[in-house]
Amino acid sequence: MDKSILEKIKFNSEGLVPVITQSYYTGKVLMQAYANREAIEKTIETGFATYYSRSRKQLWVKGETSGNKQKVVKIKIDCDGDSILYLVKDYGVACHTGEESCFYRNIEMKKEEKPDPYEIFHALYQKLTQRKIERPEGSYVASLFEKGSDKIIQKVGEEAIETVIALKNKNREEIIYEASDLIFHLIVALVDAGVKIEELQEELLRRYK
Amino acid sequence: MDKSILEKIKFNSEGLVPVITQSYYTGKVLMQAYANREAIEKTIETGFATYYSRSRKQLWVKGETSGNKQKVVKIKIDCDGDSILYLVKDYGVACHTGEESCFYRNIEMKKEEKPDPYEIFHALYQKLTQRKIERPEGSYVASLFEKGSDKIIQKVGEEAIETVIALKNKNREEIIYEASDLIFHLIVALVDAGVKIEELQEELLRRYK
Repeated sequence: MDKSILEKIKFNSEGLVPVITQSYYTGKVLMQAYANREAIEKTIETGFATYYSRSRKQLWVKGETSGNKQKVVKIKIDCDGDSILYLVKDYGVACHTGEESCFYRNIEMKKEEKPDPYEIFHALYQKLTQRKIERPEGSYVASLFEKGSDKIIQKVGEEAIETVIALKNKNREEIIYEASDLIFHLIVALVDAGVKIEELQEELLRRYK
Repeated sequence: MDKSILEKIKFNSEGLVPVITQSYYTGKVLMQAYANREAIEKTIETGFATYYSRSRKQLWVKGETSGNKQKVVKIKIDCDGDSILYLVKDYGVACHTGEESCFYRNIEMKKEEKPDPYEIFHALYQKLTQRKIERPEGSYVASLFEKGSDKIIQKVGEEAIETVIALKNKNREEIIYEASDLIFHLIVALVDAGVKIEELQEELLRRYK
């Protein structure tokens, strides 16, 4: 990776810059820490997120002890050069509590039961994978997996036709409902086939121009 | 909104805490700034993102002059309480350069031509809307809009059937290709119908349990 970014960063009086760490595929903000020049150089050289620990006063390769290293796909810099962003993948969990993100509590200091909208497709994928493994009693999705691939594929076709009819009816509520149903069942089918949303994202990005 | 978060925030020696601002629906990290206690109180009270400007040494209601106010849907706090996250919507653009995000440059200090994977569905929606308006010569999508709603709806049906066949063939590459085609054309149909991805995200969240 090119290191010209280093010349543009405005480090603070302690020689540090705040770093935001974000999941490349889901968009989840995982943590916020600090880096000095050396930490950023090491991140660029190794491809793994490196920070500067203000408490331990030393470089800190995230995941060196826990195993949850963060593979850095991109580094971005903000308009005035005093904040940077690591986009990471294959990171396991980022928080020492075992949560995926350090930002797991809301304003009432509670963990929320639902994901944020930007991550809903990935959250569904994860939830449906769990249903496939655990097969909880009374779960609609578990019953789909029970019936097998043909039934799941059939549902994709069915929901697509219902979406087509909703689109023809030009009924907004119906379109929202049926297109959501289609996406939901498409995700069930992807889980069933072992294809990841990440793979679709990469395919759509490849075509994007 | 509950203000109990304020008791848990560890402000630094200047009485500030870093704030990450993220788009609620797309996941895009828009900016990183600072807040003092008063700024967070004002954010909670007004529902609009308020920061503390270190250069002007005063409270700063983002968008008060530019009009690009940020509607705060959620506030989150990190595990050790020294960083907070504003999830915002209806924000227009966040950067004074006119870019949506302040983090618009990569490590080579260039603006990237492609979106990041986490925002690909929204980026496609935006691009396809642009194609619908501008109808550039030779564009496949422009020709679809030219042919009208029936042709677009027909494509959704076609791509769904191709996805069904790919799933039946259990061919990974084919599934990735066809499911991407289906999503692509579903987004064309949503643009055509004036239905937003945000509306599907809300519907899927509503069902999420």
